[in-house]
Amino acid sequence: MAVNLTPPDPASLHPVAGIELGVAMAGVRKANKRDLLLMRFGPGSTAAGVFTQNRFCAAPVILAKRHLAAGADTRALVVNTGNANAGTGEDGLARAAAVCDAVARSLGCPAQEVLPFSTGVIMEPLPVERIIAGLPAAVADLRADNWAAAAEAIMTTDTVPKATSRRVRLGAGEVTVTGIAKGAGMIRPDMATMLGFVATDAKVSHRALEALVRQVADSSFNCITVDGDTSTNDAFVVVASGASGVVAQSEADLASLGRAVTEVASHLAQAIVRDGEGATKFITVRIEGGCSVEECRRVAYAIAHSPLVKTAFFASDPNLGRILAAIGNAGIADLDPSRLQLYLDAVLVAANGGRHPEYREEMGAAALAKPEFTVRALLGRGAAAATIWTCDLSFDYVKINAEYRT
Amino acid sequence: MAVNLTPPDPASLHPVAGIELGVAMAGVRKANKRDLLLMRFGPGSTAAGVFTQNRFCAAPVILAKRHLAAGADTRALVVNTGNANAGTGEDGLARAAAVCDAVARSLGCPAQEVLPFSTGVIMEPLPVERIIAGLPAAVADLRADNWAAAAEAIMTTDTVPKATSRRVRLGAGEVTVTGIAKGAGMIRPDMATMLGFVATDAKVSHRALEALVRQVADSSFNCITVDGDTSTNDAFVVVASGASGVVAQSEADLASLGRAVTEVASHLAQAIVRDGEGATKFITVRIEGGCSVEECRRVAYAIAHSPLVKTAFFASDPNLGRILAAIGNAGIADLDPSRLQLYLDAVLVAANGGRHPEYREEMGAAALAKPEFTVRALLGRGAAAATIWTCDLSFDYVKINAEYRT
Repeated sequence: MAVNLTPPDPASLHPVAGIELGVAMAGVRKANKRDLLLMRFGPGSTAAGVFTQNRFCAAPVILAKRHLAAGADTRALVVNTGNANAGTGEDGLARAAAVCDAVARSLGCPAQEVLPFSTGVIMEPLPVERIIAGLPAAVADLRADNWAAAAEAIMTTDTVPKATSRRVRLGAGEVTVTGIAKGAGMIRPDMATMLGFVATDAKVSHRALEALVRQVADSSFNCITVDGDTSTNDAFVVVASGASGVVAQSEADLASLGRAVTEVASHLAQAIVRDGEGATKFITVRIEGGCSVEECRRVAYAIAHSPLVKTAFFASDPNLGRILAAIGNAGIADLDPSRLQLYLDAVLVAANGGRHPEYREEMGAAALAKPEFTVRALLGRGAAAATIWTCDLSFDYVKINAEYRT
Repeated sequence: MAVNLTPPDPASLHPVAGIELGVAMAGVRKANKRDLLLMRFGPGSTAAGVFTQNRFCAAPVILAKRHLAAGADTRALVVNTGNANAGTGEDGLARAAAVCDAVARSLGCPAQEVLPFSTGVIMEPLPVERIIAGLPAAVADLRADNWAAAAEAIMTTDTVPKATSRRVRLGAGEVTVTGIAKGAGMIRPDMATMLGFVATDAKVSHRALEALVRQVADSSFNCITVDGDTSTNDAFVVVASGASGVVAQSEADLASLGRAVTEVASHLAQAIVRDGEGATKFITVRIEGGCSVEECRRVAYAIAHSPLVKTAFFASDPNLGRILAAIGNAGIADLDPSRLQLYLDAVLVAANGGRHPEYREEMGAAALAKPEFTVRALLGRGAAAATIWTCDLSFDYVKINAEYRT
């Protein structure tokens, strides 16, 4: 039921020099499901990531942050689905470390050069032995043109695998950017989303990559919400293998590369919303005329998180009052309702604190009947703007989440 | 489908000396439905209220606040359902004023002594002429023992009328406190809820009543949430007719009266949650050991607003990870997960950052299978505590709100 989202054509996913991917069925939670992904990076690769701000961040997140902070090379990344290894205390950390140790032994590198990721049920012990038993098959499967399988292996409640690829010309030559992501529920990334991995064969310093990953996250994964719940396991990691031999160092090159990575990350972030649990609509919420970007984002999220607005979207009901009420609840004490202008796509629906005189219900209904539309509010306070992407709240969201563990 | 909530026995609703109520069918939105309530207060009555903080507060809310602020006597209150007169700009204010004028003419008092309230669809013009045409029937119906009919007349998506009554002995004699409320969706009161009216025949000064209403709201209507959406029309008003001749002036008397009004208001507030749209469970969220009440409330609302937690409650699924994730998202940067203790009713389910070793899934499932239970979290940071009441998120919430206007 994803909104305008189909599986990526494997041929469109360009391999990234210096990076191989292997998947396997480890039986973490279910048998006969690819649930283990291993990514191997060539020597000299740099990596940077942003992670959930949830105070109950998962054991693998804690460990991945530690490994990145230690400043060592990053040679591999291991992901399991079926179990999030979150809310598991010290024992969870030991289990995540055991997985890193096993990967390090398989690949012949220090454990600190392995980044672990987990997604799935929270507060259950991670079945380390099954993951370790599955590793040899993942190692045997390692190859550069395996991105489509990798995107599939990290899915949980996702219905469509999420991957995309770009090529970009820098001063010294062309480089590739390819990324995958997973996520459909518990989505309101704070620094990043529920597992996004983007790789490039450009050569990028660790410091430049760290700046790039934050910038990219802020205009992609940090602009989406499905249900307002920030996961315990969110992580977005960019790896630069340098294997193309093309160095991205000048401001212009880093900007070009940043744009390509942002394109990939935005595509993946929007794919997560399109595949949002129970989603039937993809909605862009655009707020303009605010005093600050932060204030615009606050209004956008007030709209995007309102269950009443989201159910009205589901019903294709242009219930303008609910949108106004949500804006009024965004916590902007001196917001002047009489200055607000509200649009559904190109239709001006509200102005001067009330319904626009030329607005007719059919006009709003026509906009909302489409699978994709834009809600645009002009606050009339300043020059700042912000955009976020969200989906509606349907019966299926409740069904999926009421039945998730059964 | 309200949770442990039945209509009040009319005989249990004590009349309040000096106060009469009349209802009528005005056909505001639907025919053959009691949708108009008039309350008349005897001379010398005082009134105080708290109102929504929503920036798009409705025209009647603006007018009621003005009338109260003018310091005039309050002689009447008029409520219509079916139309909220919110998001209606200057025209909405004129229509609300026209209703006050008509009531004032009927009762022979200045319009400023009338408080108007509306609830229902947002952003539609209020059909003033129908309300005015319905007034004579409401006036003819005015009587002191009409509280049950009044509670029914203010219902919208409510399935059960909400009313309760207390008697309390003050120094100079016994007084009565009786109240009614409505509300089931768009419920996360900020200063008050979607229409709560409590009356007493005690004699209370305007200044004392203002303090009392704020204090009562903070421990009743401001402790509930259904869906986190603050309505544009929230209002909670306490009227003291003084007709019992019993003056509440001493600190002890005001405290006794405050307790009785709080009991009435808490009953009504909890009734709103029990009748929450689609609710199948009534949940008390109790947070202890915080540094401040504000921080405890923040954690409580993070739990109570999480769609993932609410759907798990609906499914009677003790999905502890979702509760931990919600607590971790409450925005307390220095929260230490290893100090948290989490209880479902009396069962300790999590401690030391992970699942309690003696916890078994059946224990949590047994707690959540009940129609009422308590989620209790000890933060291990300080001595502050807070309690809020909420309900689950079911298929019917989506159904009710997707179909509301059709």
